[in-house]
Amino acid sequence: MKIGVLGTGAVGTAINSKLIELGHQVMIGSRDNTNEKAIEFVDKFDSNASSGTFEEAASFGEIIFNCIKGEFAVAVLKSVENSIQNKILIDISIPVDTSKGAPLSLIPELCNTNSLGEEIQKNLPDTKVVKTLNTMWSTLMTAPGTLKNGDHTNFICGNDDEAKATVKSLLNEIGWKDETILDLGDIVGSRGTEATVLLWLRIWGATIGTFSLKVVN
Amino acid sequence: MKIGVLGTGAVGTAINSKLIELGHQVMIGSRDNTNEKAIEFVDKFDSNASSGTFEEAASFGEIIFNCIKGEFAVAVLKSVENSIQNKILIDISIPVDTSKGAPLSLIPELCNTNSLGEEIQKNLPDTKVVKTLNTMWSTLMTAPGTLKNGDHTNFICGNDDEAKATVKSLLNEIGWKDETILDLGDIVGSRGTEATVLLWLRIWGATIGTFSLKVVN
Repeated sequence: MKIGVLGTGAVGTAINSKLIELGHQVMIGSRDNTNEKAIEFVDKFDSNASSGTFEEAASFGEIIFNCIKGEFAVAVLKSVENSIQNKILIDISIPVDTSKGAPLSLIPELCNTNSLGEEIQKNLPDTKVVKTLNTMWSTLMTAPGTLKNGDHTNFICGNDDEAKATVKSLLNEIGWKDETILDLGDIVGSRGTEATVLLWLRIWGATIGTFSLKVVN
Repeated sequence: MKIGVLGTGAVGTAINSKLIELGHQVMIGSRDNTNEKAIEFVDKFDSNASSGTFEEAASFGEIIFNCIKGEFAVAVLKSVENSIQNKILIDISIPVDTSKGAPLSLIPELCNTNSLGEEIQKNLPDTKVVKTLNTMWSTLMTAPGTLKNGDHTNFICGNDDEAKATVKSLLNEIGWKDETILDLGDIVGSRGTEATVLLWLRIWGATIGTFSLKVVN
């Protein structure tokens, strides 16, 4: 499948590497097409990897991953709106407020009674936004089996059931077993999964090594 | 031990019943001492149970449980400040904003960059506030073993290490094994555990029966 991955940080890189390993064609999108991280990354892989602007990657992909920093996500996605119309946008970003110091918090207007996932969906009504993979270490997103044989939970939410089914298949490919993927309903579920970062940061401070959350029932 | 439990809802009732079962002397505190739920409750038990006003229960207890609705908690606790000075206050409440409809959200000034746990600690500087038991069904708080033999996580946080050690012992008595209690550091950790209600509500909507969260590592 042709996939556009927007963002060249730790999350984008983890996603890109896995998708290429699985045989997908990936274009990495960044602010301009001279992004060093993107070029370095493409150089490491075969012809399945390419890089371009956000716009080029958005046009290239049948499915788009949003791995852009939360604070820039809406503006960037709005700028490529036409290229991702009617496509699935897998949103992994978290609206962390980097304007404030520690302890990290969420952007006030994107938490509690709103979320980044919802804000993106509102701004791009013709795109199928599916929020997932945003409650765990980036190293676990594409390798869940490296922790307790994958026995932990990945949440998914979004307004379009067909889009979620497609994303679930891709998650299966990546290594998430069906029974570890919990569908929280519509995109409003992002309020819960994005706010989990506040708990995540404290668990991170209190434990050693990789961890994840599991819904026990 | 003499324990004051403020609040007569589902949480207060679960806590009361367990503490009495364990042989503690419990006074249930409510707005006035004609509270029907409190009187009914006391009638069911032996002389280890009694009821009174918030003030009487706060004076009675060596340790106090806050099971008051989040929106009223600070005002009630401030009104009994002198009676809980230098005591441990175990805070279980969540600052749910009941003034808005569904989906439920947190009181804006008590989330993200603040929390109810912190707000109580700021208002009662001479009380040792320990936040715990606020991320699960009330039925699991005092009976963790009824779900997967207790293999799920209870978070604890607070500024006073000695107070947390005392509360951990009480949690052990209630049924929480040491390895299931995760200390998230100071009271600022409440931001994470209180915000978990946003995720909790969505998991509740997506699953059947009792569930809980477990930190897998």
